[in-house]
Amino acid sequence: MEKAPLRGNAAIPMSFPTSYHAVDDQQQLVNGQQFRSASISSDDEMIDITTTGTVTERSIHQDELAASHFAGDADDIPGIGQYDDFHTIDWQRDIARDRMRHRYIVKKKQDSICDLIKGAHDAWSGWVCVLLVGVFTGVVAGVIDIGASWMSDLKYGICPQAFWLNREQCCWSSNETTFDNGNCSQWWTWPEVFSQSREGVGPYIISYLFYIVWALIFAALAASLVRMFAPYACGSGIPEIKTILSGFIIRGYLGKWTLIIKSVGIMLAVSAGLSLGKEGPMVHIACCIGNIFSYLFPKYGKNEAKKREILSAAAAAGVSVAFGAPIGGVLFSLEEVSYYFPLKTLWRSFFCALVAAFVLRSINPFGNEHSVLFFVEYNKPWIFFELVPFIGLGIIGGVIATIFIKANLYWCRYRKVSKLGQYPVTEVLVVAVITAVIAYPNPYTRMNTSQLIYLLFSQCGVSNSDNLCDYNRNFTDVTSAIEKAAAGPGVYKAIWLLVLALIFKLIATIFTFGFKAPCGLFIPSLCLGAIMGRIVGVGVEQLAYHYPHVWMFSGECSTGDDCITPGLYAMVGAAAVLGGVTRMTVSLVVIMFELTGGVRYIVPLMAAAMASKWVGDALGRQGIYDAHIELNGYPFLDSKEEFAHTSLAADVMQPKRNETLSVLTQDSMTVEDVESLLRETEHNGFPVVVSRESQYLVGFVLRRDLNLAISNAKRTQEGICAQSLVLFTSQTPVQTTGPPPLKLKKILDMAPITITDQTPMETVVDMFRKLGLRQTLVTHNGRLLGVITKKDVLRHLKQMDNEDPSSVLFN
Amino acid sequence: MEKAPLRGNAAIPMSFPTSYHAVDDQQQLVNGQQFRSASISSDDEMIDITTTGTVTERSIHQDELAASHFAGDADDIPGIGQYDDFHTIDWQRDIARDRMRHRYIVKKKQDSICDLIKGAHDAWSGWVCVLLVGVFTGVVAGVIDIGASWMSDLKYGICPQAFWLNREQCCWSSNETTFDNGNCSQWWTWPEVFSQSREGVGPYIISYLFYIVWALIFAALAASLVRMFAPYACGSGIPEIKTILSGFIIRGYLGKWTLIIKSVGIMLAVSAGLSLGKEGPMVHIACCIGNIFSYLFPKYGKNEAKKREILSAAAAAGVSVAFGAPIGGVLFSLEEVSYYFPLKTLWRSFFCALVAAFVLRSINPFGNEHSVLFFVEYNKPWIFFELVPFIGLGIIGGVIATIFIKANLYWCRYRKVSKLGQYPVTEVLVVAVITAVIAYPNPYTRMNTSQLIYLLFSQCGVSNSDNLCDYNRNFTDVTSAIEKAAAGPGVYKAIWLLVLALIFKLIATIFTFGFKAPCGLFIPSLCLGAIMGRIVGVGVEQLAYHYPHVWMFSGECSTGDDCITPGLYAMVGAAAVLGGVTRMTVSLVVIMFELTGGVRYIVPLMAAAMASKWVGDALGRQGIYDAHIELNGYPFLDSKEEFAHTSLAADVMQPKRNETLSVLTQDSMTVEDVESLLRETEHNGFPVVVSRESQYLVGFVLRRDLNLAISNAKRTQEGICAQSLVLFTSQTPVQTTGPPPLKLKKILDMAPITITDQTPMETVVDMFRKLGLRQTLVTHNGRLLGVITKKDVLRHLKQMDNEDPSSVLFN
Repeated sequence: MEKAPLRGNAAIPMSFPTSYHAVDDQQQLVNGQQFRSASISSDDEMIDITTTGTVTERSIHQDELAASHFAGDADDIPGIGQYDDFHTIDWQRDIARDRMRHRYIVKKKQDSICDLIKGAHDAWSGWVCVLLVGVFTGVVAGVIDIGASWMSDLKYGICPQAFWLNREQCCWSSNETTFDNGNCSQWWTWPEVFSQSREGVGPYIISYLFYIVWALIFAALAASLVRMFAPYACGSGIPEIKTILSGFIIRGYLGKWTLIIKSVGIMLAVSAGLSLGKEGPMVHIACCIGNIFSYLFPKYGKNEAKKREILSAAAAAGVSVAFGAPIGGVLFSLEEVSYYFPLKTLWRSFFCALVAAFVLRSINPFGNEHSVLFFVEYNKPWIFFELVPFIGLGIIGGVIATIFIKANLYWCRYRKVSKLGQYPVTEVLVVAVITAVIAYPNPYTRMNTSQLIYLLFSQCGVSNSDNLCDYNRNFTDVTSAIEKAAAGPGVYKAIWLLVLALIFKLIATIFTFGFKAPCGLFIPSLCLGAIMGRIVGVGVEQLAYHYPHVWMFSGECSTGDDCITPGLYAMVGAAAVLGGVTRMTVSLVVIMFELTGGVRYIVPLMAAAMASKWVGDALGRQGIYDAHIELNGYPFLDSKEEFAHTSLAADVMQPKRNETLSVLTQDSMTVEDVESLLRETEHNGFPVVVSRESQYLVGFVLRRDLNLAISNAKRTQEGICAQSLVLFTSQTPVQTTGPPPLKLKKILDMAPITITDQTPMETVVDMFRKLGLRQTLVTHNGRLLGVITKKDVLRHLKQMDNEDPSSVLFN
Repeated sequence: MEKAPLRGNAAIPMSFPTSYHAVDDQQQLVNGQQFRSASISSDDEMIDITTTGTVTERSIHQDELAASHFAGDADDIPGIGQYDDFHTIDWQRDIARDRMRHRYIVKKKQDSICDLIKGAHDAWSGWVCVLLVGVFTGVVAGVIDIGASWMSDLKYGICPQAFWLNREQCCWSSNETTFDNGNCSQWWTWPEVFSQSREGVGPYIISYLFYIVWALIFAALAASLVRMFAPYACGSGIPEIKTILSGFIIRGYLGKWTLIIKSVGIMLAVSAGLSLGKEGPMVHIACCIGNIFSYLFPKYGKNEAKKREILSAAAAAGVSVAFGAPIGGVLFSLEEVSYYFPLKTLWRSFFCALVAAFVLRSINPFGNEHSVLFFVEYNKPWIFFELVPFIGLGIIGGVIATIFIKANLYWCRYRKVSKLGQYPVTEVLVVAVITAVIAYPNPYTRMNTSQLIYLLFSQCGVSNSDNLCDYNRNFTDVTSAIEKAAAGPGVYKAIWLLVLALIFKLIATIFTFGFKAPCGLFIPSLCLGAIMGRIVGVGVEQLAYHYPHVWMFSGECSTGDDCITPGLYAMVGAAAVLGGVTRMTVSLVVIMFELTGGVRYIVPLMAAAMASKWVGDALGRQGIYDAHIELNGYPFLDSKEEFAHTSLAADVMQPKRNETLSVLTQDSMTVEDVESLLRETEHNGFPVVVSRESQYLVGFVLRRDLNLAISNAKRTQEGICAQSLVLFTSQTPVQTTGPPPLKLKKILDMAPITITDQTPMETVVDMFRKLGLRQTLVTHNGRLLGVITKKDVLRHLKQMDNEDPSSVLFN
């Protein structure tokens, strides 16, 4: 093949169009308070577009293309091609830029050994980066687990010999073999510290007070840290990560301060006994780690599209460490979070998730041998008939999830518009105190949510002494089968307490999720579902005990063994509520299966998840994450929703009928004309046409580049004045008088994506989704008619769904 | 919202362009012999485009669009819009058509109860269809498993009391507790049938002869059935299914005859003792079931794009039943097979895979309780140091896989061009006889390949009496740990036999894969890897026994227990070779993990799969499936490969410099002109422009539609003659004399995808992949310059890789 000399690539100018809409959308952010004070970490998503070289290897038709050649010196002008904060990225441009860089490195590899090493480093950097992300995610997760466990136990007491040990570790050091209620003599509860007694009213009140005070301290710390250092560290972060991965810039959202504050904050928030989990924030933390490490590798750090490949893998690692579920994590990243490039990064995401899980397992923060969070092992398989109650659980789960989503959204919207939003720390404190006061008396709400879930999932065996297992049965042997038995009074008492816990947890979570501290809702959702499932499970079990000869129980339940496992119902119920809340499907089933190690129970889990999703979809369109994305007005174009209307591109494009389209001409406008156009309009980019009369499209140029190029030319080129012609062509017109022309072909994108005005909007939406466009130009018989931006598409979608189109805020 | 009256959709004409290239590409098929006699099943992929209605709901700008309205009566003309065999489908068109149908049903739902039921049926049909596909796939897999097991045993003997039982079932009916080498008195081997003796030279020869004769009979039956009834039933089918799912039409490839013959043929081929597996063909069989059931639901049966959603789910079900791995099946379908819509169908694919696995498990063809194919349980976890030999296994696996791929491709290419291809049945017979003759003497090749894999995977325990477990150790107790021991002479003998088996299997599989009988290569690949792994494993084990104090073994191996499990090495080696051959990644690891139930061994499996893939990619670009796709010249645009060149659309488009573009004008050509254009060119479609001078693009029309519309008009409309003007506009020109014009606006696609000539080819390739295009029109400043079809893109890719561009055969 013939080799061409070094020259710029004709088709990929150094700068590309940004979107067409007004630039000052950020100013609409006054409602989105969480974005207000993001300044401290704004350096974390710096972008530098400087492409080191533009060597191209062209073999055919070089001569034909000589005309479109340009010098490739656009990187002389500083700042050209960067993205503004809260803007949408252009995937095609970034990916093209990466391929150019890659070709340059491959080409240079033959030059010297140094370049060869550089080439190898470049080829490996993706793997090295995800390896580092995996390792650090595992380590951070381990630290958070250990810290949260220690602080949670601090609410109840302290280990006087070694205050840095939590209760379990403290008791390991003692030699007692049995612990009463998990307490040992080494571990001092707060009443013991002060009055040396455990029972009675006085100690109870002391414990109660300490519980509330610690909750208050932890919550205050968490909320203040977030408010002072990293406002982006609040919430679960998953809606924002979905938006970022779909190609949006939020500077500092994945920065180092967010990482630190979110890690500390989530430990504090979990320890405060609030109704929240650390699993969602773990995804955010992992993505912060991914973002930070991507800066070690310019290939990823300086290219927003490539960076999202690392973030995708990091999200998988986040779920992997949160639940000990690497496969589930990859599927979660694929199904729920990632947007644009699922398959290419699948293998790397899997690697990252596996490394993270492996590191966390080696740290072993819980000190048990089971690698899964809620390891369960049931004696009995499920009966086919049980699919009916499982589907029933799915339906109830879907209803509970819908209630939760609607109520939570209502409360979040109220927070946004009312004065409440101005007192974030106070809100957290009030929620924390109320939660602590109500939670303490009920043993099921007092205990750690994870412990409660584990208790509800587990089967009543010999060692289980909880009220829930107060059956009229005697265990003769550890290995013997569990016999069928009537429930004792303890079970009924437990059921009542669980009903109260369910109501309390539901209300608490509604008010908790969305406040200004780190909070996830995987664990609260699982807990709601597990309570519901366990109650239904006990009901079915007692039904089978009292009516063993009804046809549905007659097969398996006629022997003396217990044929119904209430723990399995809890597991299925947990999957149902979580599925209803998040609308996850395959990833949910795989996570539950990895979470519990229950290979045999995929079918029940699937049945419940399916029923729950259908009920949820029927009652309310969106899952909680999509609802929060909409609430915040992020420009997220859901890749799963179908566009069901018949509009055409002509219906959606700007300008509307009575307006005129702002365009530049290729060779007839002066600098003055261009500057006045820039002053008078707010569009982010302008199409360039042959002439104003013909409107035949030449290319697209963006406001930012135009501004920069003009001011740069005025500064550096001699003779450029208001009367200079602005040329977007390569030929200089015959012009003997007047000032020299300003040549701007290098900032012109000569390959904008165009569609005809008759294109159905479903095709347009598809193109925006799949090609990651920011805007497309609409033509008719070759003439330019208008522009459609991502924001136009989103607003049109809202309008079609009879919603307020102005709720879409950003470009 | 305002409702528009019933009318056609302005933007989606009933017919769409096909590609621009010559129509008679099928004639190049003389080399691809497998396509020659496909006529018997050509009715299986009938397509009927008749859209039941074109109700549209338009709310805005109706008036503006009135001009582009058309009567929507294009379905008057029979045959418009169908696809020809061996052509590429247009995803955008099919999906738009489905949405139109969906809108019509939603709209009509309010009219009557009957329509409401129809609407509900439509909404549920996807789930019902995958349910049916899952159930039937499970049943067919069960039948194949039972049949293949019975016929395999027929080679050795018969159950005289009940000839329909296989050896295992036959022996269940006897009351003996121990079987010598799996034989019991109920089961008569062939020598016993004739001479009542089992030992000695005579019986050995009789057994040998019977083995060969049965192999010959089975192979002859399999090859003849395929040759006579369903030529598409040969091979594994996965390359073709990948191509079909990427949007290609091969009529009859997924038809009922293919299903029946492939099911019977794979039983016969497996029983013949050939070096092949039934796992790959199971995917093909599942896809046939998916295709057949999709005809029950017009939503899927009559829409090629929607049908591929069902096929995707069916492929997942196929892998799910082949390995008992539902999650692995879904990931396989996602990663390896599916192309265009992975996420939308994920949940349904998972459902389908789970139902299929559940049904197969209920049938329980193997009669054991483990749901996984090769259930293993090792006593010892792996040591961190072992990652080194595991990665070594990955490297060797990659090398073996590359040797296999290159040799197999060489042989297949030779078969295509030489006379060998004319004797497919003879070839199968010769391979079968040679395989049988060589395989019988070696016990490891004589046994069923699955049994061999299971043997190699398993740990040497008390019950294992094979030579491979001839260690100098005594078992005191079933539950005691396995002590470290030196290998006995049996092990060394076994190793030698395994080396011979490895060489033989490798050569046999090279000649087997690709011949004209059903054959898969999952099991042979796993077997090659397992043999290799076991040999290495025994080596490492003996190393650890003889040098227990070397640093790398000093931690875990210093106690008396066996610290190295050779079975685990076999498992890792199997993953390595399979990974190298197919280049699967995540799905491979998940399948292996589900196949063996070994949760703890994900990290070793992953390390080996990774090493193997990298070695494979370094030595030869393609996996076996992609290589076979290329060999057959299918138009498959790989979604994983990156386009690494700098060409522009202008370099690739047709026509080249000295040719002229064949176009139609919107209102100045007569029927005669159009007909002569159709006669003189072979393009599958023509752009329509404003005038030949201006070349401004109006739309695109396809040859097939044009032919049909003209002949239809001549038949039904009065006055249409050779001088009639052909109009693609809605206005009738002022024309008083002459014959009435022929209005063809209804067959014009007014929303063709266009790009500019300066668009980089990487963007163009991306658009072809992601939007599923057949062609795109190239413009410059609004003027039409040329056309790029999928075939042009594929040929350009070949050219860039210095390969023969004419190897791309189809449109």
